[in-house]
Amino acid sequence: MSRYERVEIALGERAYPILIGPGLLNDATTLSDCIAARDLLIVTNEVVAPLYLATLEAALKGRRVHSLILPDGEQHKTLASLATIVDALVDARLNRDAAVVALGGGVIGDMAGFAAACYQRGIDYIQVPTTLLAQVDSSVGGKTAVNHPLAKNMIGAFHQPRCVLADTRTLASLPDREYSAGLAEVVKYGLIRDAAFFGWLEDRAEALLARDDAAVATAVRRSCEIKAEVVGIDEREQGLRAILNLGHTFGHAIETASGYGNWLHGEAVAAGMVVAADMSERLGWLQAPERARAVQLLKRMRLPVEPPKIGASRARELMGMDKKVLGGKLRLVLMRQLGEADVVSDYDAGVLDATLRAHFD
Amino acid sequence: MSRYERVEIALGERAYPILIGPGLLNDATTLSDCIAARDLLIVTNEVVAPLYLATLEAALKGRRVHSLILPDGEQHKTLASLATIVDALVDARLNRDAAVVALGGGVIGDMAGFAAACYQRGIDYIQVPTTLLAQVDSSVGGKTAVNHPLAKNMIGAFHQPRCVLADTRTLASLPDREYSAGLAEVVKYGLIRDAAFFGWLEDRAEALLARDDAAVATAVRRSCEIKAEVVGIDEREQGLRAILNLGHTFGHAIETASGYGNWLHGEAVAAGMVVAADMSERLGWLQAPERARAVQLLKRMRLPVEPPKIGASRARELMGMDKKVLGGKLRLVLMRQLGEADVVSDYDAGVLDATLRAHFD
Repeated sequence: MSRYERVEIALGERAYPILIGPGLLNDATTLSDCIAARDLLIVTNEVVAPLYLATLEAALKGRRVHSLILPDGEQHKTLASLATIVDALVDARLNRDAAVVALGGGVIGDMAGFAAACYQRGIDYIQVPTTLLAQVDSSVGGKTAVNHPLAKNMIGAFHQPRCVLADTRTLASLPDREYSAGLAEVVKYGLIRDAAFFGWLEDRAEALLARDDAAVATAVRRSCEIKAEVVGIDEREQGLRAILNLGHTFGHAIETASGYGNWLHGEAVAAGMVVAADMSERLGWLQAPERARAVQLLKRMRLPVEPPKIGASRARELMGMDKKVLGGKLRLVLMRQLGEADVVSDYDAGVLDATLRAHFD
Repeated sequence: MSRYERVEIALGERAYPILIGPGLLNDATTLSDCIAARDLLIVTNEVVAPLYLATLEAALKGRRVHSLILPDGEQHKTLASLATIVDALVDARLNRDAAVVALGGGVIGDMAGFAAACYQRGIDYIQVPTTLLAQVDSSVGGKTAVNHPLAKNMIGAFHQPRCVLADTRTLASLPDREYSAGLAEVVKYGLIRDAAFFGWLEDRAEALLARDDAAVATAVRRSCEIKAEVVGIDEREQGLRAILNLGHTFGHAIETASGYGNWLHGEAVAAGMVVAADMSERLGWLQAPERARAVQLLKRMRLPVEPPKIGASRARELMGMDKKVLGGKLRLVLMRQLGEADVVSDYDAGVLDATLRAHFD
């Protein structure tokens, strides 16, 4: 087990470990130790299945393993796909002691996790994230959901996995664009909570882009630790946890306006973080050189740093439907300084307007 | 407030009150005190809406109240109806501080509660149960769900309401058959946990059938208290709580085989309790006169006391898909004596077979 980085997510009776490292999927002993259930449904997609499904099934031999291969893409993160997963659970006659294994990226994790949350009002699930975004984002927090045609993640549940098994070698098969989208979230953790980690990312940017084993494992571990720290303080997203959404409110507007799947989530978040950083600077909180460092690092990670020109009023409208609206007042995640984000609703509304016009018009 | 019976459901930070009594729906002051949210979606059905929707809306004037009227019937307790409720929430642009109000019977309560559990990963909901079954069963326990074509309540969540407002006068509009179906669950509470209450029901059977205000309010209160006591010990249905399912495993087989909606839930439970009582007697636990009293009281409540002849093997198959199967072994709720139920899996399988043959063949 010592071959892997390990993060313990402390949530009382729902505590669980995250194991991170190269080759984990081929390590039948560790997988078997981490997965208790005898009856399993592996939920994956048509891109991931040819790469890793047989390996995972082989590691779980001796169990009753069923599998379900869904189409790939955020556009399939729907109630209809949830119904398909539930159908597979019922068809396999799986009971409350069965578990769902999510093998894939964030979309698979969100849907399979939500199916596990709902099926018979909640069964176990295990995450085997195969994208960088899923390894650093979906692994911690217990958020599961599907999309509504008008808004992302509108239908879901908080449901913690039993364990997360993040094989960093699976990232080798990611397209560059998807890998960079994952790096957007890694950069986010530095921006919101850890200036030193942000500096480390600046130093190790080339190694990360080259998918160096050690650099990747460290980045994933530190990202999970930061998210765990924030979630541990605020599991049900009442306050602090919202800082994890830096760039996401603007980003959701970008994703929704463009149609799900045209902008990758991480790409929209990257552009959204630039908008948030600019607004933070306009409010006099973030210094210009700090904003420039954020933009520069995102660019080096090969990420877009400007939203599409969907119009400020359309952006505002799409942000208004976001879950972060409380009592009609739009809360925003902004930056006090590099390494410190805050959730604010007492900002000058004119500054928001000016920011939206500058980036979306 | 003293005009109403009141049961406090103690669940820590998710504690909530149940108010029970005649005329509650017309009591704008009490309703307004109990419902905190400013933005509400009332979910009801086409049978209940003409009777009570305007009254409830009038009591809530000053709030932003939306309403959604669904078709009536268990056959509509589906993921498709869940999607319809979520669409209504999104269309009304309701946020996390909004609440869903379930106005109707158990089907409406289960669906609206599940929609509230899922929408934005969980918003508040308030139950206004208008059937006896919903007042004594759905008011306590936090179970929400929709059905799968192959099994009831397969997709759901545990989600506690903020409060339950049970106007016993609404029971006046119930068809006799549905009212009796509710009495099946009332009898159940006596059978599983309170022989004295069972005796009181024998004494007050005629008053209950006549829907006498005081008798009904007492029966609802005592039923809620017993359920709360059991759920309080075992909120997540790990053990004791399963005794609330007396008659339900056999009953689910009846409902599923007959197609949802042909047997009322309470009717299936009544016949299922008779099967459970017979098996308990065959095992030497329940005495013959006790079983006879149970059958007799159910008959007086105008309930069916024999299942349809769907065949023992079909019944067994349908029971096998039930959520109460754990590790492949079928757990059953049986009766140690009048007023005491138990969850058992170490029964003689031959006795189950003989019981199923006696009642289903």
